[in-house]
Amino acid sequence: MDIKQYMEQLGQRARKASRAMARADSAARNRALTLIADAIERDADALRAANQLDMDAAAANGLEPAMLDRLALSDKAIATMIEGLRQIVALPDPIGEISGLKFRPTGIQVGQMRVPLGVIGIIYESRPNVTVDAAGLCIKSGNATILRGGSEAIHCNRALAKLVKEGLEGAGLPADGVQVVDTTDRAAVGALITMPQYVDVIVPRGGKSLIARLMAEATVPMIKHLDGICHVYIDGKADMKKAVDIGFNAKCHRYGTCNTMETLLVARSIAPAVLPQLAALYATKEVELRADPEAKAILAGYPHLVDATEEDWSTEYLAPILAVKVVEDMDEAMDHISAYSSKHTEAIITEDHSAAMRFLREVDSASVMINASTRFADGFEYGLGAEIGISNDKLHARGPVGLEGLTSLKYVVFGHGEVRQ
Amino acid sequence: MDIKQYMEQLGQRARKASRAMARADSAARNRALTLIADAIERDADALRAANQLDMDAAAANGLEPAMLDRLALSDKAIATMIEGLRQIVALPDPIGEISGLKFRPTGIQVGQMRVPLGVIGIIYESRPNVTVDAAGLCIKSGNATILRGGSEAIHCNRALAKLVKEGLEGAGLPADGVQVVDTTDRAAVGALITMPQYVDVIVPRGGKSLIARLMAEATVPMIKHLDGICHVYIDGKADMKKAVDIGFNAKCHRYGTCNTMETLLVARSIAPAVLPQLAALYATKEVELRADPEAKAILAGYPHLVDATEEDWSTEYLAPILAVKVVEDMDEAMDHISAYSSKHTEAIITEDHSAAMRFLREVDSASVMINASTRFADGFEYGLGAEIGISNDKLHARGPVGLEGLTSLKYVVFGHGEVRQ
Repeated sequence: MDIKQYMEQLGQRARKASRAMARADSAARNRALTLIADAIERDADALRAANQLDMDAAAANGLEPAMLDRLALSDKAIATMIEGLRQIVALPDPIGEISGLKFRPTGIQVGQMRVPLGVIGIIYESRPNVTVDAAGLCIKSGNATILRGGSEAIHCNRALAKLVKEGLEGAGLPADGVQVVDTTDRAAVGALITMPQYVDVIVPRGGKSLIARLMAEATVPMIKHLDGICHVYIDGKADMKKAVDIGFNAKCHRYGTCNTMETLLVARSIAPAVLPQLAALYATKEVELRADPEAKAILAGYPHLVDATEEDWSTEYLAPILAVKVVEDMDEAMDHISAYSSKHTEAIITEDHSAAMRFLREVDSASVMINASTRFADGFEYGLGAEIGISNDKLHARGPVGLEGLTSLKYVVFGHGEVRQ
Repeated sequence: MDIKQYMEQLGQRARKASRAMARADSAARNRALTLIADAIERDADALRAANQLDMDAAAANGLEPAMLDRLALSDKAIATMIEGLRQIVALPDPIGEISGLKFRPTGIQVGQMRVPLGVIGIIYESRPNVTVDAAGLCIKSGNATILRGGSEAIHCNRALAKLVKEGLEGAGLPADGVQVVDTTDRAAVGALITMPQYVDVIVPRGGKSLIARLMAEATVPMIKHLDGICHVYIDGKADMKKAVDIGFNAKCHRYGTCNTMETLLVARSIAPAVLPQLAALYATKEVELRADPEAKAILAGYPHLVDATEEDWSTEYLAPILAVKVVEDMDEAMDHISAYSSKHTEAIITEDHSAAMRFLREVDSASVMINASTRFADGFEYGLGAEIGISNDKLHARGPVGLEGLTSLKYVVFGHGEVRQ
C-alpha cells in the first residue's frame, strides 16, 4: 500500500470517527481523558523505554543536543502530560452551547450552536508531549484527530498512541478518534494537508520553515502561527516605572518566545529619560541594542551598542538582541508598527487615556495591550485554560487559540411548521 | 503598466486606506453610505445611460437573455440599491465592541474587540447592484474593498464607483476605501486572489464554476459558497400538516436558490401516508420526482416519476426536480445526509423531542432546522440585516454571512504596569 492510500484510509476512518466523537457527551470525553492520564501513569516505564529507542536512534543519527533535549521524555515531562490531561478534564465543555436564540417575525427561533470542527490534523516536530496535549484538546472539543509527529519520536508516539486508543475505547469512544500516523515517510505530510474531504483544519506546531513549507502546498485550511515581531511603544506620557518594568520584562523574561518584544519604540520627549534607565537593566543581561541614530546618541557608552539596519525592523531575534528607535509620537509609532509588525502583539506604555484607547483600536495586531508586558500574550495567561497554538491569521481564530478555536458555530432553527412566504 | 502592477497599486492603496476606514467612527461610515444613496438617486439617469452601453455591447456580443436580464439596471434595481444602503445605515455598528473583558489573577484585564478584517476583495458576475451592496457592507464594517465585477458591466460599475468615491470623500473617508477594478482583463482576478499582503479575504459571489476556479488558484483565504444539496427528513413521528407544508415549500417556493430542498427523505412508517399528499401538491407544479424503488412504489401513477440513480443523491437541481428516498429511521436519514449533503441546510420534521434534539446536534451542516422550511436559511430571515453571502466553510463564518463575517476579534489587554513573573 502506498503512502497516499494509507493516509486516505486514516482520513476515512477519522471522518467516520468524527461523527461518534461529536455526539459523545461531556462525561464520555472527560472519561477518556482521565483513562489516558491513568494509562500514562501506569505505563511510564514502557514510555521511557520507547523514548530511549528514539533517543538512541537520534544520537546515532547525530541529532543536535538541543533537538535531543526536546525529544527526551523526562519524568517531569511525563508528569506534565498527565497533569495537562487532568487540567483539560477540568475545563468547561466547549461543545453544544446555543447562543443568541431569538424569535424572528416569521415565528422561527434562530440561534447558533457550538460544534466540533470535525477532523483536525496536527503536524509537529520532535516533542512527544505534543501527542498527548493535542490529542487531549481534540478529544475535549469533540473532534477526531490525525497526529503526525516528528519521525525521530516515532517509537514514543506509537506507545502513546496505544494508550490514547485504550482510553478512548475504555470510555466507549471510537479508537480511531485519535490516530497517529505510523510512518516516518515525509510524503505522509503532503497527503495529510491535501485531503480537504477528510480533514477540516490543519494545526501545524513548529518553526517558521515547517509552516512556510505547508502553506505552499496545503489545500486544507490552516490555523497557523508565523513569527512574532512584537513592539512596545513608550509614549511621551508614560509612567517611568511602568515603562522600565515592562520594557525590561518584555525583552528579558524569555528570549525564545514569540511574544517577546523585538523592537522598542520610544517617544522623542521621553527617550533621554527612559532609555538610560532601561539600558542599565539590559546591560545586566548583556542585551545587544541595535539603535537608530537618535537612540544611539542617547545610549552612547552602552557596552553592546550596534547601528540598526533596515533589516532589524523586521527581524525576530529570539535572542538577547533588541532594536530601538526614537519616534516623534504615537502616530509615527503606529506607522512603524503597521509597516514592520508581524501583527502578533504590540503594547503601549502611557498614562494618556485618549492615546491608549486610540492605540488599542487602531493597531491591527492579534493582541494589543496597554501598560502590560507583551509576554502576557498566551492562552494560559488569557484564561483559555489550554492552548493549541497562537494564530497569526485574521480569519477564524486570532491570537492564542484554545478549545474554542477547534469548534465552529452552526445555525440552529426551531420551527413550528413555518414555511417561507 | 501591466495588469499585475496595476493590481498591486490597487492593493497598496487599499491597504493604506484600510487604516483610515478602520479608525473612522460610526457616524462617518454611515454618512458615506447616505451620501452614496443620495448620489445614486440624483444620478439615476447617468447610471441608466452607462448601463445601456453595457446592454448594447452585451446584445452585440450575443449574451443570453437570462444574462442580459441580470445585467439590466431597471428602475426597480436602482431603487433597491438605494433602499439597501439606507437599511445598512440603520444596522448596528459591528465594530469596536469589547466582549468578555475579565480580570486575570495577574491583574491584567483581557477581552476581545471586534475589528474590521482590513481589505476585502469581492469577485462577482454581471449584476451591477452587487457593486453597491458589497461596497455598502464593507464601508459599514470599516473595511477597505476592491471590487471586481463582471466585464460586461464595466460601464455601469465605473459610473457607480464614481458615486461611491464621492460619498466616501464627502464623509471625510479615503476615496480608495472602495476601488473598482477598471479593466476587463481576466488576469486581474488572478492577481487579486494571490496578493495576501494586500487582501485579507476574498468573497466570491457567483456560480460554482467561478468558485472552483478561484479555489484552485487563490492564496488569499476565501469566504466561499459552493452548492446547496439540502435535505428534508420527514420522521415517523412527524405532524402530517407540517410535513406536507414544509415538504412543498422547501421545494417549490423557489427552485433556483441554494437553500431549496433537493432530496426528500421519508421514514418508512409514514411514507405511505405522507408521500401521496405531497405528490398531489408537487403535481400542481409539475415537479419531477426521482424516487428510489420503495418511494416509487408508493408514488405509482404520479405523472412525472423517474427512477433515482446514485447521481441524483448528490445533484443540486435548481429546478422543479426532487430526489425522494424512503429510509428506515432517523439514523439512516442522518447517514444519507452525512454521505451526500453539501452541509448547507437540513431539516427534520418531527414531534419527537429527543429525535429533534439529536438531529439538531448530530447533523453537521451550516444550518440545521426542526419543523421549518430550508428556505429560511438566509441572512435576512436569520436577522443578520444584510448578507454578503452564504458560507459552506466551517472556519470563520458558517452559513449566512452578515457584517460580523467581515470582522475579526483581536485580544485587548488593559494593564497597570504588570509584568510576567
